[in-house]
Amino acid sequence: MSVLVVGTTALDSIKTPKSENPRLLGGSASHAAVASSFFTHTQLVGVVGEDFPSQHVRLYRKHGLCLKGLEHVKGGKTFHWSGEYEVNMNNRQTLATVLGVIEHWQPTLPGDYEATPHVLLANISPQIQNRVLDQMSRPKFVVADTMDLWLNIALDEVLRLLKRIDCLVLNDSEARQLTDEHNTVAALPKIHKLGPRYVIIKKGEHGAILSSPKGLFLAPAYPLKKVVDPTGAGDSFVGGLMGYLASQKVGSVDKHLRRAMIHGAVIASFCCEGFGLSVTTKTSRPQITARVRELEKIAGF
Amino acid sequence: MSVLVVGTTALDSIKTPKSENPRLLGGSASHAAVASSFFTHTQLVGVVGEDFPSQHVRLYRKHGLCLKGLEHVKGGKTFHWSGEYEVNMNNRQTLATVLGVIEHWQPTLPGDYEATPHVLLANISPQIQNRVLDQMSRPKFVVADTMDLWLNIALDEVLRLLKRIDCLVLNDSEARQLTDEHNTVAALPKIHKLGPRYVIIKKGEHGAILSSPKGLFLAPAYPLKKVVDPTGAGDSFVGGLMGYLASQKVGSVDKHLRRAMIHGAVIASFCCEGFGLSVTTKTSRPQITARVRELEKIAGF
Repeated sequence: MSVLVVGTTALDSIKTPKSENPRLLGGSASHAAVASSFFTHTQLVGVVGEDFPSQHVRLYRKHGLCLKGLEHVKGGKTFHWSGEYEVNMNNRQTLATVLGVIEHWQPTLPGDYEATPHVLLANISPQIQNRVLDQMSRPKFVVADTMDLWLNIALDEVLRLLKRIDCLVLNDSEARQLTDEHNTVAALPKIHKLGPRYVIIKKGEHGAILSSPKGLFLAPAYPLKKVVDPTGAGDSFVGGLMGYLASQKVGSVDKHLRRAMIHGAVIASFCCEGFGLSVTTKTSRPQITARVRELEKIAGF
Repeated sequence: MSVLVVGTTALDSIKTPKSENPRLLGGSASHAAVASSFFTHTQLVGVVGEDFPSQHVRLYRKHGLCLKGLEHVKGGKTFHWSGEYEVNMNNRQTLATVLGVIEHWQPTLPGDYEATPHVLLANISPQIQNRVLDQMSRPKFVVADTMDLWLNIALDEVLRLLKRIDCLVLNDSEARQLTDEHNTVAALPKIHKLGPRYVIIKKGEHGAILSSPKGLFLAPAYPLKKVVDPTGAGDSFVGGLMGYLASQKVGSVDKHLRRAMIHGAVIASFCCEGFGLSVTTKTSRPQITARVRELEKIAGF
């Protein structure tokens, strides 16, 4: 089954202690949709300006993404984020954000998108996430990602969204912010009370925790000796998760969600090994399967 | 088979945002030996002063610990540590350390201890750890724990120790300090080069990583909704690990080490649920087995 991904399509300028890389293809929807495309047909909903390089569009196409929902704004500037990582590659600082065409974007979905069964509301303003949901007719499974910014400046809209989705994905500090609870495990029931039946807390290199009607699941992260650029790892995780889930023809969400998270974690690991999407886009399905097997081996007891 | 545990036997005064608890039974050897005692016969080597409450000795006895190696120094003061935890229960500050009888302690093992097959050098000065090893005759498996303090003030002695042990246990920030490597996975081979064939990096609530001749193993931590006092959790982990390992009658270390870590993680979880040893000492073997089964369920995929 198909996945619809909405989120940011961006140009990212990324500085690490070792390197500086301007105007890479980035954005939550770019990472998530490419990750999903390894497993299933994926529709990308986003907006770019006139400065968006055609090679990036070709890269989307290479991954078989349906681009009917990718708006090009004449004379507009593509959303641009720049950030700098500290030497530990976990802490980062945003250096600049230029919203460009995303600022006043009001997405209108192509007509035949409304029946897409799996909807991934990748990180973007909750107004846009809600607006996309408004246009969907009874999707089977809706996952939303968010970030601290929206909890700070658009909490009401986030809370409205939480009542409409099946699964919220957020990181541990955001879970703390949303619930005022320092203990991650204790934060989970508080998030369920806000709406979603499934909650996934991302912990970066420490893996992720799923809380579902079937209880908890502790997903490991794939251990990497070298992290080149973690930008987009969380988006890759949730994109891979959703793509894998949608690719399962029979069985419930509960049956497949654990392995979906493992597949998401593996795509995220490839994402971290290069700047932007450079390694992810060169990854093959057998390489993904090999890392999933490795994770089975190193996490079993 | 028996386990010999050497380390600190202390009185801990622990402050958390919710409570203050003076002069609890604490110390690396107390936590580690009690944890080990759930699985096998355990010998405690330590030193206490005249102020050491007899109820603490009774508690050691209740757990069947052999106390021939526990020295009582007349007129001496027991090692006393006091610390305060921040609201997240991960960060802590040492408020005071009074070395007391531990300062000039030169342990001499009871004669029949020298053939103990499993030796756990719980956290204490590396001079004392080396001195105990000097008195052992070809132990089967030696595990050592350490802390940042010894890496700062007695690095040479730590490096000498590393060449003599089978397994080093340390936390992620200590691994960084020892290797100058920010990536935990990349730090592992550097630690192997210093001596130990097995390296375990503790990550608190995020579990632990084992690096062994058989490759990596990612051990989960038991997820707790409420952490009352994490003091001694690392000692409980390594004590439980060693006790479980020593209790296995057939099979190699490699065969049992993963499950040994899981059992250690479970004892550590009980430790965190109360101040000092208050919950650990009330724990039963069936409760331990139940949490091991739960971990199997919530970590499998």
